[in-house]
Amino acid sequence: MTDPLSDTVRAAWTAGRAARNGWLTVPDPHLVEVVAAHAAGHGLLDALTLDLQHGLFDRARSADAVRAIAAHGLTPLVRLPAVDESIIGFVLDLGVRGVIAPMVSDAATAAELVAACRYPPDGRRSFGPVRTALRPGDDPVAVADSVLAFAMIETAGALDRAAEIAAVPGLDGLFVGPGDLGVALGIGPAQNREEPAIHDAFARVLAACAASGTRAAVHATDPAYAAARAADGFALVTAWSDVPAILGSMDGVRAAF
Amino acid sequence: MTDPLSDTVRAAWTAGRAARNGWLTVPDPHLVEVVAAHAAGHGLLDALTLDLQHGLFDRARSADAVRAIAAHGLTPLVRLPAVDESIIGFVLDLGVRGVIAPMVSDAATAAELVAACRYPPDGRRSFGPVRTALRPGDDPVAVADSVLAFAMIETAGALDRAAEIAAVPGLDGLFVGPGDLGVALGIGPAQNREEPAIHDAFARVLAACAASGTRAAVHATDPAYAAARAADGFALVTAWSDVPAILGSMDGVRAAF
Amino acid sequence: MTDPLSDTVRAAWTAGRAARNGWLTVPDPHLVEVVAAHAAGHGLLDALTLDLQHGLFDRARSADAVRAIAAHGLTPLVRLPAVDESIIGFVLDLGVRGVIAPMVSDAATAAELVAACRYPPDGRRSFGPVRTALRPGDDPVAVADSVLAFAMIETAGALDRAAEIAAVPGLDGLFVGPGDLGVALGIGPAQNREEPAIHDAFARVLAACAASGTRAAVHATDPAYAAARAADGFALVTAWSDVPAILGSMDGVRAAF
Amino acid sequence: MTDPLSDTVRAAWTAGRAARNGWLTVPDPHLVEVVAAHAAGHGLLDALTLDLQHGLFDRARSADAVRAIAAHGLTPLVRLPAVDESIIGFVLDLGVRGVIAPMVSDAATAAELVAACRYPPDGRRSFGPVRTALRPGDDPVAVADSVLAFAMIETAGALDRAAEIAAVPGLDGLFVGPGDLGVALGIGPAQNREEPAIHDAFARVLAACAASGTRAAVHATDPAYAAARAADGFALVTAWSDVPAILGSMDGVRAAF
Amino acid sequence: MTDPLSDTVRAAWTAGRAARNGWLTVPDPHLVEVVAAHAAGHGLLDALTLDLQHGLFDRARSADAVRAIAAHGLTPLVRLPAVDESIIGFVLDLGVRGVIAPMVSDAATAAELVAACRYPPDGRRSFGPVRTALRPGDDPVAVADSVLAFAMIETAGALDRAAEIAAVPGLDGLFVGPGDLGVALGIGPAQNREEPAIHDAFARVLAACAASGTRAAVHATDPAYAAARAADGFALVTAWSDVPAILGSMDGVRAAF
Amino acid sequence: MTDPLSDTVRAAWTAGRAARNGWLTVPDPHLVEVVAAHAAGHGLLDALTLDLQHGLFDRARSADAVRAIAAHGLTPLVRLPAVDESIIGFVLDLGVRGVIAPMVSDAATAAELVAACRYPPDGRRSFGPVRTALRPGDDPVAVADSVLAFAMIETAGALDRAAEIAAVPGLDGLFVGPGDLGVALGIGPAQNREEPAIHDAFARVLAACAASGTRAAVHATDPAYAAARAADGFALVTAWSDVPAILGSMDGVRAAF
Repeated sequence: MTDPLSDTVRAAWTAGRAARNGWLTVPDPHLVEVVAAHAAGHGLLDALTLDLQHGLFDRARSADAVRAIAAHGLTPLVRLPAVDESIIGFVLDLGVRGVIAPMVSDAATAAELVAACRYPPDGRRSFGPVRTALRPGDDPVAVADSVLAFAMIETAGALDRAAEIAAVPGLDGLFVGPGDLGVALGIGPAQNREEPAIHDAFARVLAACAASGTRAAVHATDPAYAAARAADGFALVTAWSDVPAILGSMDGVRAAF
Repeated sequence: MTDPLSDTVRAAWTAGRAARNGWLTVPDPHLVEVVAAHAAGHGLLDALTLDLQHGLFDRARSADAVRAIAAHGLTPLVRLPAVDESIIGFVLDLGVRGVIAPMVSDAATAAELVAACRYPPDGRRSFGPVRTALRPGDDPVAVADSVLAFAMIETAGALDRAAEIAAVPGLDGLFVGPGDLGVALGIGPAQNREEPAIHDAFARVLAACAASGTRAAVHATDPAYAAARAADGFALVTAWSDVPAILGSMDGVRAAF
Repeated sequence: MTDPLSDTVRAAWTAGRAARNGWLTVPDPHLVEVVAAHAAGHGLLDALTLDLQHGLFDRARSADAVRAIAAHGLTPLVRLPAVDESIIGFVLDLGVRGVIAPMVSDAATAAELVAACRYPPDGRRSFGPVRTALRPGDDPVAVADSVLAFAMIETAGALDRAAEIAAVPGLDGLFVGPGDLGVALGIGPAQNREEPAIHDAFARVLAACAASGTRAAVHATDPAYAAARAADGFALVTAWSDVPAILGSMDGVRAAF
Repeated sequence: MTDPLSDTVRAAWTAGRAARNGWLTVPDPHLVEVVAAHAAGHGLLDALTLDLQHGLFDRARSADAVRAIAAHGLTPLVRLPAVDESIIGFVLDLGVRGVIAPMVSDAATAAELVAACRYPPDGRRSFGPVRTALRPGDDPVAVADSVLAFAMIETAGALDRAAEIAAVPGLDGLFVGPGDLGVALGIGPAQNREEPAIHDAFARVLAACAASGTRAAVHATDPAYAAARAADGFALVTAWSDVPAILGSMDGVRAAF
Repeated sequence: MTDPLSDTVRAAWTAGRAARNGWLTVPDPHLVEVVAAHAAGHGLLDALTLDLQHGLFDRARSADAVRAIAAHGLTPLVRLPAVDESIIGFVLDLGVRGVIAPMVSDAATAAELVAACRYPPDGRRSFGPVRTALRPGDDPVAVADSVLAFAMIETAGALDRAAEIAAVPGLDGLFVGPGDLGVALGIGPAQNREEPAIHDAFARVLAACAASGTRAAVHATDPAYAAARAADGFALVTAWSDVPAILGSMDGVRAAF
Repeated sequence: MTDPLSDTVRAAWTAGRAARNGWLTVPDPHLVEVVAAHAAGHGLLDALTLDLQHGLFDRARSADAVRAIAAHGLTPLVRLPAVDESIIGFVLDLGVRGVIAPMVSDAATAAELVAACRYPPDGRRSFGPVRTALRPGDDPVAVADSVLAFAMIETAGALDRAAEIAAVPGLDGLFVGPGDLGVALGIGPAQNREEPAIHDAFARVLAACAASGTRAAVHATDPAYAAARAADGFALVTAWSDVPAILGSMDGVRAAF
């Protein structure tokens, strides 16, 4: 839904704290709702991101998931499979409040991302509200104007060009993907890791965002690691992820038997 | 699949230990496979049960889930929505290796359950292998003969008649459902609980099974509680359950932030 | 969802007016949400009923639809395919707030309906909240206690026995189905019709409900007809129905070309 | 659809020949349409039966399949999972033109089957056309009156009572299921087999149908066997079946390599 | 289906009148069939367009919808999400008879659209009939040759270059999208509106089509507005649209209560 | 699954024989499993290819199909709808062991294909194992390194540039598509055909592969034709295809009646 009240990401920022994000790859609407209701009811997370790149969401399941997330007052985000205008338009029509584009390595691609999120004359998005004008008073243009656009920094080239990417007008921030970035840096997938190379990358991204007045975000699967990154200055941190959570939950079985 | 190697429940019994069961209510085949692969690969669980009563599995999703479980060598079980011949026939055709019938309160219902699991002349099941004769050498009759049939003990009447239910020819055992049983006993849903009333009920079920030469099983969501019940003599214990696991996994987020 | 605020049917009764119901047979969750958002936003309807008898909802689609209806604050109801304990339990687990049973012709069937809606010791429902305990503070027992149970009066036998059916303890009311009732009375499907036979049937149902302290409900597809029935004393009236609405909307095309 | 032109089963009978049936267990609507279009275009089959007992069709897929079959002018039939009024009503609402009930062992069950197919006063079916009144001129009552009801003879008891089952008013015929019947007779699943026991059973069914003025039908997967049964007097013969056809088609690979 | 008889759009043109189009965004196959059967049976519409840009159709649902439309003799069209060769190929394989490309702003894009619709040597479409060769006599090449290709005029640039876009060889016409065009013109979404700016745009598109010998089309949701545009010379007009129709149908509820 | 044991394509090559491929366009997971189990159990096929171009697989069905194929030990391949990085990444994440790209007409496109299949620094694939790291010991990098990449030769331009396409570093081979190639050569779809033009094309592809040290593959629907091509030197031959097999299976009905 497009309830202005559900922009809990911006609310966290207004309150001076990092927004906490959950990551979803399993496209079951009941599971999504269970997570959203629990996270919202206990104040654990601010946003839930549907992963359309390495997750199994399709069009129908994305719609179902956005509906479930918004119903419980969390902010629905999407990690895109690519910077593709028609996919961006589709997920924004569903009421997704922010998009995270993978593998952005230059400013031109980031500019395309921004253009795909805005209606003319600011961009090239096609007008056709699907879920952003459901209710009396919903204003699809206002919703569109507030959509968050993040470019993922996860290639060697992106790290070198972080400053110029961050400076693209209309971009809201850079989102570090430690999995791919670690591969790019030759240290292997680097989620929740503490090597100097990854911390150095974090510092460069934080600096680029500070210089451009945008926000830095980062992916993790360990809540404590995510909290440490929030303390470092990241404004949006992934603190929970569905499949790692499921696998971790089975440790208790090993311990008990 | 009907791979004889996948009857890991009986293998546990042969090895002199309780079989550990996982409980599934979310009908996403990828989630089911993630759980099955991890549980099998690390030797954590022996069986996975699809809950067709309080879970969201339908026909198609049940087939997908059984396929995913069998592919990783665990034993697929089903908790039935009712003692209904056509549903029992359908899930057994899929290659499910055991059925757990809810709310059985008398021996006649348990006898219907058994009859629905066996081909004539032993029962009334209709012949039509769907997944039990997929491969050269698969023998659907042999598979049918080895299907486990458990009657849930979860009503006041069932507890009173546990001995006669357990004595129904062909029944493999009694499966205590502490959620409903606690409601029936007036103490509220009693999963993972230690009140004397629930322990007394466990003792009565264990005694009924011992007397009849059948096996006792019990549902829990806390692995340690399940392990304690295995130590008490239950031969099949639910030690992990999808939604409680997901919810529990979010405690780490609360702790970190 | 199980939001107490969403029991808009009882709220209408408290406000001294009939509750207005919409009828859904097309199982698309986006369509359901479009209807729910518009009806709630403009204050047009109080409840939406999923037709599991003559509609195309299955388990998954029912869950999606209930989620969409509750998200917009309307009350989700279900017209059952039959008085079947496992189906009743399933839809109530989803958070459905009332069930309408078709073709009830005697008090014993109505009593089975009531028993399937209540937990022991009042009934036989099995405990396993799926969507009724999603959020902190949700109380699945309180939700269960407030479930509405209506018996449809749509056979010749039902009309004769309306008084005794209405008197079944725990039943909330009688729901006239003019389609089947017209067939039973030999006048053909009688939705939105004014024959004396159908008005006489309405009067008998209203009288039976008045005598038993229960509420009368009636199905229609014409809003004006439904409003007239509300004026007659029916407490719940179907005033909009998806397929008739779609077909009616095409009259404008005929007129324009 | 309910196109009177699509009652190709009765058309075959009028033309003095057996109706040829195809059997579907795989619930993919494209596959169903490919089969329907080819069978209709080349005049190979008259009917296609959705197997809801040992096939994987659910509500949505049944609707899709009936639509695909009717679009190409063949007659859609359903093999029921059980004699269940709500399922029978649902498939008839979809425009299915005949139902085949499994495991009927006595006349009372056959009478229930007939009652579930007819509107009052002849039966107990509930009125609610879903696909039988789609088009101007479609008459759902006329369609209902012409629905074929077959009772499967596939248990030992059924064979003994074939004459009284066949004599149930309104029943259109007996349908031999050699798979289950062979199990019941102790010779194992007997599709396409020539043992005296199975031929004797055929003869008893043919005789019972002749005596009652009803029609005999039989299942097979080998077209030549089916043609032989048609020559014997069976009025409806299954001559093609999806999974056996798929498996058989792979023999060419073995031969070539 | 590829039934030549179902090219009701060209039939309208041959009869000297505009073709009336219906617009579908809700991907439920039963809803699509209900609309198609009613529109065809009462002669209300000639074509139904699946909106793959601002609608919720995916691959499976598109196939189901095309099947339902063709079964009732209307012409299935698709509004594309983008000029994407693989999507165009897929929908044409399904038997879609025309494609409408969004946001075309130059002749080069229109030429890509045409090339994607034709087999070599005229274009680049890959050969692989899925539903265009289902029946004996179906000729997938003939079907491909008759596919309609429309470029949407809905950006400022497109309006400026309407003449050169219309002149692209093989293009069948221009399709005005007043929603996006109004945004581009700075007057906001302009469906069913009468401002001079939008009428001026219509005139320019009609002139460009007249000059190039192609046809003009336009989207609307108000049937009377669509009829007026047909009178103006538009050869294809959207006269009915699913979600607006549903919402409009609820006005009757407001009036009655 | 990513079981190294399931790379039955390379095993065939190691054994000095052509790998036999089956072709799937119908996206039903049960049908896929029936085919996989039978083909594996009888040693008929080595690989099964999901056709995402002219078949009906979407994301969810692709995942289900890969799971079913891998469970029976055959090698899952995908024919891509286009050389699209995000789709290639998605299917490889599912555990697909090789991709076949359609309509490749130049070396640059083949190089893009290769880059999309490899992680940096060899390519541009994004890291995010979905099914390639399910089990303890699964190594997603090793799986990625072994992915087969084939470029289809099916346009006039491709045939002219076969040698340079085959020479693209990292490409595993050329895959002739006789359907489109016949259209390109002006002789119409040329599956299973013997014209000199098609044999000449085969010879050119075999020569290009020999020169570059890569492997040649070819599509057919007739097993004997496929076996002849294997004898000619093709290393991977499609020897069975679902829809042609289904249609061919119905010839027996024609013969019998």
